[in-house]
Amino acid sequence: MPPLVESLGRLIAELSKLPGIGERSAERLAFHLLREPPEEAKRLAEAILDVKARIRSCSTCSNLTEADPCRLCADSSRDRTTICVVEQPNDLWAIEKAGAYRGLYHVLLGRIAPLEDVHPEDLTIVRLVERVRAGGVTEVIFATNPTLEGDGTALHIQRLLAGTGVRLTRLARGIPAGSTLQYVSPPSLADALDGRRPLG
Amino acid sequence: MPPLVESLGRLIAELSKLPGIGERSAERLAFHLLREPPEEAKRLAEAILDVKARIRSCSTCSNLTEADPCRLCADSSRDRTTICVVEQPNDLWAIEKAGAYRGLYHVLLGRIAPLEDVHPEDLTIVRLVERVRAGGVTEVIFATNPTLEGDGTALHIQRLLAGTGVRLTRLARGIPAGSTLQYVSPPSLADALDGRRPLG
Repeated sequence: MPPLVESLGRLIAELSKLPGIGERSAERLAFHLLREPPEEAKRLAEAILDVKARIRSCSTCSNLTEADPCRLCADSSRDRTTICVVEQPNDLWAIEKAGAYRGLYHVLLGRIAPLEDVHPEDLTIVRLVERVRAGGVTEVIFATNPTLEGDGTALHIQRLLAGTGVRLTRLARGIPAGSTLQYVSPPSLADALDGRRPLG
Repeated sequence: MPPLVESLGRLIAELSKLPGIGERSAERLAFHLLREPPEEAKRLAEAILDVKARIRSCSTCSNLTEADPCRLCADSSRDRTTICVVEQPNDLWAIEKAGAYRGLYHVLLGRIAPLEDVHPEDLTIVRLVERVRAGGVTEVIFATNPTLEGDGTALHIQRLLAGTGVRLTRLARGIPAGSTLQYVSPPSLADALDGRRPLG
């Protein structure tokens, strides 16, 4: 049906384009924004514009950043001998949140997926190889997603780095901390059995 | 943890304020907006600002509108003898979508809820009574929510309109079309039994 109010219809249409937001949620969000004080809605609109205007890719690691190089690449307290390779900036963010890694990163900006027409040259692989060849790096940790494509991408890069003498590792796979064994997926259980560790 | 990028952190914070959007969804939405072409993000930001700048309440029925009176109040093809009373503009919208009503509306902009400090004078009840007393209206249909507060609000207005000679009705209650009897809530089943209709 035609929206009763044109500008509201347009907002709902724009909100519906967001991932995970169906038409019903978009309506709810639009009505919420309508009820909010104008300053609140303005803050959201400005935050959206701001992010687009200010954020770019770090020229070293492709992390999202406002300054170049990014805060992580520029941080002299980080361990510069290790590079953790991730697919997307949000993967990097997830690892930073875990707080267990103190090295550098390299964001591929995707994974090799020929069926979706994503090839090695579409990613930042060349720059990663350059960083490693430039020296000073002793370990590259692959933290691509544990999927066929993530694994394939890691394998591809692994071959390019073979012979550099750098240690190549990948994240451990197994049962997730805090999970209930009965609900763990069969592939995760298989990984956990395969990678079992001696006690004590 | 401090966000890695300030403007991104602010966008995530703003998105998290929306109803039904947790921190994880806000992150996902923010990263999505970052990946979008700038025009897309701009369209969303502008739609938000536009809605706030252009939409106001219809001075007759309190429906959301860009023009006053609203499209529905101004539509001479609508049946002007019937007013359907709803709590919020989105209730009006839901009824319009059903396409089964051709009369006018009156939006209360809430319901009486003393515990939340919402009293009759906070709603548009006085204006509704004026519209009915002005004449020409033969039926007022209450379509407040089927909750304690919605029913209470309808009851309150019913008393104010008693003696006007106008027919006062409310939406039928029963089992929702398309539902599975076994999953229908007990109050709905009780309503459905209470309001049963002769066959044929």
